[in-house]
Formats: sequence, C-alpha cells, structure tokens
Amino acid sequence: MANRKATRLEPGDTIGVLGSGQLGRMLAMAAARLGLKTHIYCPESGPAFDVAAARTIAAYDDDAALSAFAAKVKVVTYEFENVPSHTAEFLAARLPVHPNAFALATAQDRFAEKTFINGLGIATAPFAAVDTVGDLRAALAALGHPAILKTRRMGYDGKGQIMIRDGDDPAAAFATIGEQPAILEGLVPFVSEVSVVAARSVDGAFAAFDLNQNEHADHILSVTFAPASVAPATATRAFEIARAIADALDYVGVIAVELFVVIDHGVERLIVNEIAPRVHNSGHWTIDGAECSQFEQHVRAVSGWPLGSPRIRGRIEMRNLIGDEALDWPAILAEPGAYLHLYGKHEARAGRKMGHVTRVFKTITRD
Amino acid sequence: MANRKATRLEPGDTIGVLGSGQLGRMLAMAAARLGLKTHIYCPESGPAFDVAAARTIAAYDDDAALSAFAAKVKVVTYEFENVPSHTAEFLAARLPVHPNAFALATAQDRFAEKTFINGLGIATAPFAAVDTVGDLRAALAALGHPAILKTRRMGYDGKGQIMIRDGDDPAAAFATIGEQPAILEGLVPFVSEVSVVAARSVDGAFAAFDLNQNEHADHILSVTFAPASVAPATATRAFEIARAIADALDYVGVIAVELFVVIDHGVERLIVNEIAPRVHNSGHWTIDGAECSQFEQHVRAVSGWPLGSPRIRGRIEMRNLIGDEALDWPAILAEPGAYLHLYGKHEARAGRKMGHVTRVFKTITRD
Repeated sequence: MANRKATRLEPGDTIGVLGSGQLGRMLAMAAARLGLKTHIYCPESGPAFDVAAARTIAAYDDDAALSAFAAKVKVVTYEFENVPSHTAEFLAARLPVHPNAFALATAQDRFAEKTFINGLGIATAPFAAVDTVGDLRAALAALGHPAILKTRRMGYDGKGQIMIRDGDDPAAAFATIGEQPAILEGLVPFVSEVSVVAARSVDGAFAAFDLNQNEHADHILSVTFAPASVAPATATRAFEIARAIADALDYVGVIAVELFVVIDHGVERLIVNEIAPRVHNSGHWTIDGAECSQFEQHVRAVSGWPLGSPRIRGRIEMRNLIGDEALDWPAILAEPGAYLHLYGKHEARAGRKMGHVTRVFKTITRD
Repeated sequence: MANRKATRLEPGDTIGVLGSGQLGRMLAMAAARLGLKTHIYCPESGPAFDVAAARTIAAYDDDAALSAFAAKVKVVTYEFENVPSHTAEFLAARLPVHPNAFALATAQDRFAEKTFINGLGIATAPFAAVDTVGDLRAALAALGHPAILKTRRMGYDGKGQIMIRDGDDPAAAFATIGEQPAILEGLVPFVSEVSVVAARSVDGAFAAFDLNQNEHADHILSVTFAPASVAPATATRAFEIARAIADALDYVGVIAVELFVVIDHGVERLIVNEIAPRVHNSGHWTIDGAECSQFEQHVRAVSGWPLGSPRIRGRIEMRNLIGDEALDWPAILAEPGAYLHLYGKHEARAGRKMGHVTRVFKTITRD
C-alpha cells in the first residue's frame, strides 16, 4: 500500500479488472476513451471480454495466473464485491488495488459493514449477528417480527435472504439460507429507496452524482430516477453520509451507498442499507445523462487522475432490461432520444440483466 | 447486393470493419454499447484492436483471410475510403458491404467524384483530368493560376497535392506528385469550410447532424465548431446537397460532405470540396454533443436499424490533439466538462491525430 498514492497512470497504460460482467464492460469502454487499455481477469468469459485489450481466464486462487496478470497491469480494480480476500491480498502485495482491501472486506460482510457504518454515527437497520438457531431466536426476541435473515457474505439481488414473519419457524429459515453465518435485520418502514453514486480520488477529492431514487422488482433494480424526489436537505445529508463512509475507508474509486428514506415525525430521515465498493447499476444513467460517467470517474480515480464533472444533463429515468424485456430493443431503438445499452449476453435468462435504457428529459422538476 | 435490404442484424451479431484506426475504434465502442460485436480486419494492428471482440491481421488481397473474415461477420463496413476495389468486390459477393461499391469507387477518385457531383447539378471547384504534362498545361490555360494539382486517388490530409502558381513549372509539379493520374482544380475563394455529417438508412431515411464549421492547419483538421456560422438557408442547402448525394449513391451509413462557403454577390453559396464515405473527424463531437453519435448512427444504418436522434446538446467546439498536443492531456482532464478522447496510439508523431477534446457550451448562438 505504500506506493499507492504515488501511482499515476499515463495514457497507454493498462488497468487490470477482476470480473467480466457488464460493469467491467462499461469500465473497459470508459478506459478506452481515455487512451487506457484494460486487461480483464475472470474465471469465465463474459461481456467485458469483447471490449478489452487483454483477457485472462483463470481461477481467483490461481497464483501463477495472478502473478502474470499483476506483471502486465499498472493498477487493479474490480467490478464486483465478492473478490476473494486471498486474491485481493495477493495482488495488493504486488501493485495498487483500488478500492483497498479494507473497503472490500467491509462491504463483503453485512455484519462488518453495518458495524462500521454505525461506528461512524450513521444509522442502519437494527441488526444482530446470527451463527446458530439460538442466536436467531434471541435476535428475533430483540428485533421483533417481521425481520430479514441474510447471509453475512455473497448475497446480491435478494439471494441468500429470507423474511421471517411472526409464527415462522426460525430453524427452518436458518436452514433455508444454508445455516451460514448470518445477520438478522429489523424491517425498515421506508417510503423510498435512494442511492448515492460518488467518486473519491487518491488525493481525497469527492464528487457525487445527483441522488438516485430506485425501484426494485423481485429484489432486482428495475428503475432509477434522478434527481430523487426528496427534500434538498435529505439529498445533502445523503452526500455527507457517502463522503463520511468513503473518507473513513480511505476509498479510491466509485462507491455506491444505498439508503432508505423513512419519515420520522414528518421529517425525512436516512438509513443506510448497504454499500457497494464499485460502480453501481443505479449510476448507469451517467453514461448518457452526466458530463462524466460513473465508469470514467472510476477510471480517473483508480488512475490517480482528477475527477470529472458529475453534472446532470436533465431529469433522468433509467430502466433495466431484465430477461425478456431486452426483446423490446427494436422499439427502444426507434424511440427518439432513448439511449439503448445491451451487454452482449448470449442468453436472456429470467432475472438476468441484459441491458438498460436511459431517457433524459429536458427539465428538472422536484416535488 | 440482392440480399442487402433484407439484412437486419440482431444483438450479438458481428460487424466486420476494414481498418484499425481511431475511427474503427470509435465504431467498435458504439457497436458494443448496442450489444453488437466487431471484428477488425487490417494489415496491421491499430487502436481499434483494443476494443474489438475479434481481429484479423492480413493483407487486403489475401482472399483466404477475407473468406474466413466474411464467414464470421454479418455485414462489412470500413473506416477509410481507400479500401482496394478487389477487397470490396470480393466481400460484396459474399455478404452486404455498406456503404456500397459505387459509393466507394466514387469517393476514391477525385475525377469520378466531381463528375458525379456535377452530374447532380451541384457545384464543385472547376476541374480537369490530368494524365500528362500536356493535359496539365491545357488545364492551366483553361482554369488559370493558382490552381491545385491533386492525385486522383489516395490523397488525404493534404497528401498527394501541390499548388501551382503563375510561373511554376508544370512538369516539375507533375513530377512532384509522381506523374500519377491527377486532376487540376481551380482555387475556390472560400470564406469558410463546412461539412455535413449525416446518415442514411437501408430504407432511405436521412438524418444530418448540425452543420460543422472546420478550420485546418497544415491541411489537417484542427477545430470544428457546430452549429456553423452560416445563414439558415445555407445550412438547409448543405443538408439538401448531402441528401441528394446520399440518395444518388443509394448510400447506407454515415457520409461526410465537405463544402466551401463562398460569397457570391453578397450571398452565401456552397461548393462541394469532397465526400468521405465513412464517419468523419468533423463529427467526433457527436459522441458527447449529440443524442446519438455519428458512430452509433453508422452502426445503426449498416445493421439495418432505425437511425437515432442527431439532436445537438449545446454549442460545440471540438479540437484535434495532433502530435505533441496530446501531451496537454492532464490539463484537459482537469477542466470541468471537457470531454477528452485519446486513441491509444503508441507514438506521438508530428501530424498524427492522437485524440480530440470536445467542449459543449450551454447556449447556442448564431451570428
């Protein structure tokens, strides 16, 4: 880590990216705009391979392949938070890895994450660690019903979690998530879900995009609106929370902070749901709707370059194209001013993010 | 050509691109946004290779390599107008090639090009074919001095041309351009240079970006402003000219038409300088300054898809970064709202286009 702050890439240098999904694909294209190459490392081929200068297919615990990869790139970043800690540590011993290992470890474990955030004086849902059915019974007694049991690790898009209602059998619920180390979270009576997508540079500069308002369907992001319909003070507070988290993590790159908006005695209040140490689906609109996209911001940050302008171009609506929704591409192509993005995935499985469409409206209105 | 109109690509299909320069690079990225792959074919590696799903390094007359390439792609396009006619014909016998062979042949030969344009009732500089020194003397007698002797083929960025002033030796001038088949062009007393960048789809739809005003230095495009400072009727006429040319060529894809603005009895008049059957440097601003870029328009057109919206986002200034000018990248990166593009070229030779920067200003003003 000692040499981290000294690394500034030059055009022509190569950024290593762990993961070959659509986030890596959009990162690779943003890097290419700026004259940088990308080298994608992933156990399997994916959408990022089609737009990268170099590719490695190898396991995340293949030290020989990781060594060869480290020798060919100037900095390493990743497109997903479940990078094994061994992989991150192995690479970080050899070259800068952004975001850093602490950010990665914190975001990988729901218990560590919420403990860290509470430690900054920032609210989360009430939670308790669950390692046994006994822990779960005690946690339910403390937090009440309904509550959500989530694995500490590897959950995304609603995977690895189950709602426990009054009368449900705690042992059955714990079995459903595989009796893995877990946390129980109290249910938050939110009125809306918002997210901050922001970047922090090597020298501590911070730039947030406009606040996103997110709607989910089946636990998967469906639509993002920006700017979010919240009071100006709420948006300001959301940016303060994101910056406090990024500063405390000594974070470099794009970070996403998902928050719940609750009404407390008639006033909007924010509760952090989770953080993502990477570019984020709710920031996809920035490709077409902001002066500098979240992908370019991330590339700038991990390259030791100054951040770009996050200025929004209008009122934004971004819709994910999930599974068969991508079959609507001809209608979207024919719609003036609709920005269609398809990720080049071969198979439109149910629940699979196949692309997205962004619409930018000229006027910004707030409630 | 019989199957041309029937071809509509599906996401996941591959577009073949002849040429591996920065235009191919930006085409490949536009295709990837839309879920299409690109396969670059070029005798040598280049900037497009870093962002393409597949690459072939082979000569343009290597029929075995061309056959293999044709078998792997659904449609072929190109990023430069000097594609050998054999290559275009060989491929067109096997699959759709856009723009078509007639457009390519017309744009490759200055004499054919001007003859074709005049045949549409559209003005060009006065010109005459020159195959011998005798032809050249006769042409000079007819067109007067100064005049410009240009090779019919393979000229770009001022290469293959020489100004002949009163008193210059015609034989020496002809020797300078290698005594190749040439044309002599009368000098046009233009007040400004403009260009239309427009797209025509398989079904004949036509969409032009705002008119570009171009400034050259050492025969290389230096700056483009859009919209151009011309009378509204002049811009309308420029679009009519471009559409007439595209229609007459049964053109599919993005076409650029470079024109001179002259003042004739106090009124602006347009004279076509040349056409480029491809995406064009003066349209690079459309990546950041228009709703659909020229690269996406070209991909849409050659894929048999509907054209996108060419709407401009503000007043535009695009500057090429030529040779050492690219060394200014840190200052440009630090400028809020400046869109930096670098092409990933290894060596910043004098006169080499290394990148460009686009600035979008909020207000559109016209003289």
